[in-house]
Amino acid sequence: MPIVNIQVTREGTTPEHNSVTAEEKARIIAGVSNVLLEVLKKPLESTFVVIEEVDLDNWGWGGLPVPEFRKLSSQPKSEPAR
Amino acid sequence: MPIVNIQVTREGTTPEHNSVTAEEKARIIAGVSNVLLEVLKKPLESTFVVIEEVDLDNWGWGGLPVPEFRKLSSQPKSEPAR
Amino acid sequence: MPIVNIQVTREGTTPEHNSVTAEEKARIIAGVSNVLLEVLKKPLESTFVVIEEVDLDNWGWGGLPVPEFRKLSSQPKSEPAR
Amino acid sequence: MPIVNIQVTREGTTPEHNSVTAEEKARIIAGVSNVLLEVLKKPLESTFVVIEEVDLDNWGWGGLPVPEFRKLSSQPKSEPAR
Amino acid sequence: MPIVNIQVTREGTTPEHNSVTAEEKARIIAGVSNVLLEVLKKPLESTFVVIEEVDLDNWGWGGLPVPEFRKLSSQPKSEPAR
Amino acid sequence: MPIVNIQVTREGTTPEHNSVTAEEKARIIAGVSNVLLEVLKKPLESTFVVIEEVDLDNWGWGGLPVPEFRKLSSQPKSEPAR
Repeated sequence: MPIVNIQVTREGTTPEHNSVTAEEKARIIAGVSNVLLEVLKKPLESTFVVIEEVDLDNWGWGGLPVPEFRKLSSQPKSEPAR
Repeated sequence: MPIVNIQVTREGTTPEHNSVTAEEKARIIAGVSNVLLEVLKKPLESTFVVIEEVDLDNWGWGGLPVPEFRKLSSQPKSEPAR
Repeated sequence: MPIVNIQVTREGTTPEHNSVTAEEKARIIAGVSNVLLEVLKKPLESTFVVIEEVDLDNWGWGGLPVPEFRKLSSQPKSEPAR
Repeated sequence: MPIVNIQVTREGTTPEHNSVTAEEKARIIAGVSNVLLEVLKKPLESTFVVIEEVDLDNWGWGGLPVPEFRKLSSQPKSEPAR
Repeated sequence: MPIVNIQVTREGTTPEHNSVTAEEKARIIAGVSNVLLEVLKKPLESTFVVIEEVDLDNWGWGGLPVPEFRKLSSQPKSEPAR
Repeated sequence: MPIVNIQVTREGTTPEHNSVTAEEKARIIAGVSNVLLEVLKKPLESTFVVIEEVDLDNWGWGGLPVPEFRKLSSQPKSEPAR
């Protein structure tokens, strides 16, 4: 009876895609449902998985929208991070 | 002060529609808010209802995206399900 | 296949209770599931309802924890609210 | 490590916009992340903020979709509200 | 950067436990994080998993609290379910 | 009308506390509500903030429950992280 909500940024894993593909979604659904079957013995039919894709502008990390945070994080630093 | 989040698949209840209609949303909002008024005496003005429509590909059931799960479930079976 | 998450404050509707009773929860579950059956034709067996009770201190309204907001709102005012 | 989910209606704060602007989202992300840094000492890098914009039709208040609720609320009343 | 929220009923997988064990939670966290690493190439350090255990009374299925739904579902039936 | 859900680990900011204090919750509620007032002009009375405290065992980061992830992260490393 588990309910799994997965929030990910709307972007592709390869340059040809700008969002999660249907095939990747199917693999996430299968993978996560199987984890709950193996660990908690939840039958596959009783697990719901909902994938929510979030625009990069709507996701904040480090106090910044993700695109800006990534730009900043990829810059060379003179001292080690964290 | 209740907050109600409702996730449903983005699809129609009749062949003419491919999503939940505005009229259906209004009826869901009215119905759910009234349940909370009747059972918990929450005034209508203090209840928020948010309906989230989820693409069929983004919803998993039975370890599969819903479209595949439904195809499988509707196939004749030689023995009773579950 | 709908998923309904309901957040309510953890408090009773009568002086004898300090939380939502099991009977009230059962009525909420029945009521909300029926709304989705009637409006969207979702079979009862495919609807999940999760009720989350939230301590009053953890719920904010009007920029204040709910207990303080209520105290303030119930005070007589010389001019109309909002 | 906090996770902040913010649901707002998809609408603009000025007549020129019909949704939250990227600049407003950036200010919300910065503001909320800073609150968690100041109050709970959570480093900015460990806070995720997700903004979810919800169509007006999908948001219920007062037992009505928001557009209808607002129309009703803005009508003159002969007696005080609430 | 994925955020995974997992809602499960608060109950054990074996008679000795009445909730999910710490070891089971650790396996769920590892399993789900690895699915996102494998499918979407998300580094483990950027995935948050939150497990929410929900009391059986607070979970509705089939229009009933789960304990009642299970009792009903396990009763012999003269015709196939669903 | 914004709804803000904040998930944080259940732990204190000082050695004397093992959870978020009522005073800290009040400051979070005030701070976040004010951000939405300033940026989106949402009146304080129309913003709901819900704080959910999550046990450390129920929160996963880096593929591990948070307590284990922190132990690992605080160990000296011979090479820079990430």
